[in-house]
Amino acid sequence: MSESRQKALETARANQQPYLDGFFELLRIPSVSTDQTYKPEVQRAADWLVAELERLGFANCRAYPTSGHPVVFGEWLQAGPDAPTVLVYAHYDVQPVDPLDEWVSPPFEPQIRDGKIYARGVVDDKAGVWGNLKAFDAMLSANGTLPVNIKVLFEGEEETGSPSMEAFITANHDLLAADFMLVCDGGSAPGDPTIMYAARGIIEAEVTVTGPARDLHSGLYGGVAHNPLHVVGQIIGALHDADGRVLVPGFYDNVRDLVADELAMMATDEPGFVAKAVEDTGRDVFWAQALGDFSVRATALPTLDVNGIFGGYQGPGSKTVIPSQGGFKVTMRLVADQEPAVVQRKFVDYVKTFASDTASIDVRTGPLGWPVTMLFDGPEVEAVQRAYETNWGKRARMIRVGGSVPIMGMFQRELGMPLTSLGLGSGENIHAPNEYFWLEYFYKSVDTAIDFYFNLAEG
Amino acid sequence: MSESRQKALETARANQQPYLDGFFELLRIPSVSTDQTYKPEVQRAADWLVAELERLGFANCRAYPTSGHPVVFGEWLQAGPDAPTVLVYAHYDVQPVDPLDEWVSPPFEPQIRDGKIYARGVVDDKAGVWGNLKAFDAMLSANGTLPVNIKVLFEGEEETGSPSMEAFITANHDLLAADFMLVCDGGSAPGDPTIMYAARGIIEAEVTVTGPARDLHSGLYGGVAHNPLHVVGQIIGALHDADGRVLVPGFYDNVRDLVADELAMMATDEPGFVAKAVEDTGRDVFWAQALGDFSVRATALPTLDVNGIFGGYQGPGSKTVIPSQGGFKVTMRLVADQEPAVVQRKFVDYVKTFASDTASIDVRTGPLGWPVTMLFDGPEVEAVQRAYETNWGKRARMIRVGGSVPIMGMFQRELGMPLTSLGLGSGENIHAPNEYFWLEYFYKSVDTAIDFYFNLAEG
Repeated sequence: MSESRQKALETARANQQPYLDGFFELLRIPSVSTDQTYKPEVQRAADWLVAELERLGFANCRAYPTSGHPVVFGEWLQAGPDAPTVLVYAHYDVQPVDPLDEWVSPPFEPQIRDGKIYARGVVDDKAGVWGNLKAFDAMLSANGTLPVNIKVLFEGEEETGSPSMEAFITANHDLLAADFMLVCDGGSAPGDPTIMYAARGIIEAEVTVTGPARDLHSGLYGGVAHNPLHVVGQIIGALHDADGRVLVPGFYDNVRDLVADELAMMATDEPGFVAKAVEDTGRDVFWAQALGDFSVRATALPTLDVNGIFGGYQGPGSKTVIPSQGGFKVTMRLVADQEPAVVQRKFVDYVKTFASDTASIDVRTGPLGWPVTMLFDGPEVEAVQRAYETNWGKRARMIRVGGSVPIMGMFQRELGMPLTSLGLGSGENIHAPNEYFWLEYFYKSVDTAIDFYFNLAEG
Repeated sequence: MSESRQKALETARANQQPYLDGFFELLRIPSVSTDQTYKPEVQRAADWLVAELERLGFANCRAYPTSGHPVVFGEWLQAGPDAPTVLVYAHYDVQPVDPLDEWVSPPFEPQIRDGKIYARGVVDDKAGVWGNLKAFDAMLSANGTLPVNIKVLFEGEEETGSPSMEAFITANHDLLAADFMLVCDGGSAPGDPTIMYAARGIIEAEVTVTGPARDLHSGLYGGVAHNPLHVVGQIIGALHDADGRVLVPGFYDNVRDLVADELAMMATDEPGFVAKAVEDTGRDVFWAQALGDFSVRATALPTLDVNGIFGGYQGPGSKTVIPSQGGFKVTMRLVADQEPAVVQRKFVDYVKTFASDTASIDVRTGPLGWPVTMLFDGPEVEAVQRAYETNWGKRARMIRVGGSVPIMGMFQRELGMPLTSLGLGSGENIHAPNEYFWLEYFYKSVDTAIDFYFNLAEG
């Protein structure tokens, strides 16, 4: 172990109490981004972080205003031109606290009980913000320098779906330029750490079919009025073949094949994945088996799901109506290298082929969520793995997730740099009452970050 | 014109005021069958009618109790064994009056304005009850006899779907035995009188598809959990072919072909039928044209309509859910000689072929509504036609209706006798505020009934 790493870790250890005190100060600011009432508090958290970055000696520290909540930026670029530059992402906004009466202690008055720190945002994601800041603090205090160049990007509206982030990134390509991006959002389970290396993109659409101009009586117009619910059924019935393959023409174009290493790794995880699915779904036989292994279908293939259908009478008993309209909502999960706009257009075009003289079709589409493919291996991932191994006692499993993290796809697409993630929080109840962070892992989070940056610099 | 007919008509004319007074008395009884609050009033109406039948000299007059509201029965069988026996049906219960504040005069305080009698039930169907009773009254007063044998069956729960009628008929075959049944329900337009000679039967079903045991996140389980909404779409999409033909195997078995006369008559009515449909539906191109003319599809072919679909998220925006369940409601309209129970079973069997290891299917079925085929021609219809011609100035158009009148199908099936209808009311706003009956046609309704019975007896 290098002397400077050793000194940084010792400094962190010696400062556990002041680091915890500072964390509590941050936790006391109710930076709830979804509720306009808290807008001044979100601003206060941003200003507080800017002051902290300035205190650490970071340059160009600023709370950038956006159409929503501020983006906090700061940089420390004195590690020299040969050292890599890391863009560190975390978010300082937090979820709402409802239902408040289920909290044992007030969500913005952090309290330690049974070895856990209880507070809203303690894991998601003030752990990511603070673990990094205190690692920088310890390294700078111990050595007067950092082993790599750092830019921090702390978002203030992650919990509201990052509405301002795309505009901010687009306008600030140079400011954010770096060798890679480290995403420190949320946590990882101490007993089973994981590193997400891929998430699916997501696009949505809502299809409305209009038959007659108004609701009709099925006794009067059954057999002559084109029932829009029949068209809804025809379309949905034509979205998948009997094997579960999506029938939208060209849907699978550009889907990147998995490499053998990855398939082998996924096969290893398959039994645990299936066992959990049996428990979650109450089914022990799954759909679309012809398309591949369970874990491949659940995370690595694109999918199309109808999420809701509507139209006509839904109350008890029957009603002899031919409704004027009916429809359905759909989301598609995309993988590399599908382009959301292209797939969206193919879906719309396909659905519209079901329109006729007797039934018209309207499709509303939503925002485009890109798939993300983060680093699967290489020195950055290895630096994360060794930091986990040292501090958590085990390396992380590399995982694909079936869900979507649109902001990461946006980073990848807009900034064109590789990404990996380092989860610093370890606890439970994120987005729920009594969110907590294991006190032991709070201390370890600073050490883990210190180790990561030294691993990266020292190889 | 026979002397006895002449005397009966003169008696009716001489008694217009007392007949109107009696009608008002009946209209003042709020015999609303759908609201339990009015149960004693429905009973009072039944008792009042029994007293009136007794006063006319009918035999075996009785308000038969049922599990719901009473059935009023009475008979006059002294026309001799060569005279036909007519079972006359009407109903004395009425629709609720909501919204009450839209009535210009109180619904149970009949009022004459601008040549119209306003009251709830004045057309539907106290017109049918009273027009017959006063025809009997006039004929018996004038001649001491009726030209045919009469049994009356006045129902008290038609507006609630006749829940007790099947049990009553089944238990009283002998009591109700007759040569044919005359259905006097509702009205006919003075300018365009019609006689319904066929109505479709109706069966209903509700299909529920269950995929996973609980709602799942489509990011976690898209591609592996069988989405029940996809199965709903598959089933609905497989209910009709591209021409609009129902794909349930055997669905069209036993459908009786139309005879050439009827097709020719329907072709004559086609333009008016289509013109009204364009206005009602806001469409000028209709569905399933390959199956036949508009009027044939709308009234003479069986149909299957999905009346409602449900499952998943229906609020604004999107939600990434794979619901545990989804489903749809369907009604089928049947024609002679389809058997409701057989078609229902075929539907259930077909839908269940879509079940699998990953998605289960449950089908709830409702009551069986039989199609009805009433007299199309012959002496009974001719007696009606001539009564209209005499009193309304024109013969009626013979029409099929696409809707269903389950009670007539029940009469036909249970009593095994021919049926025809004679609408005695002429007005508007049935089932709506300000229901009215043209005063002129109220008087004519008694004459029309008198003429009908004499036409029938005299050929």
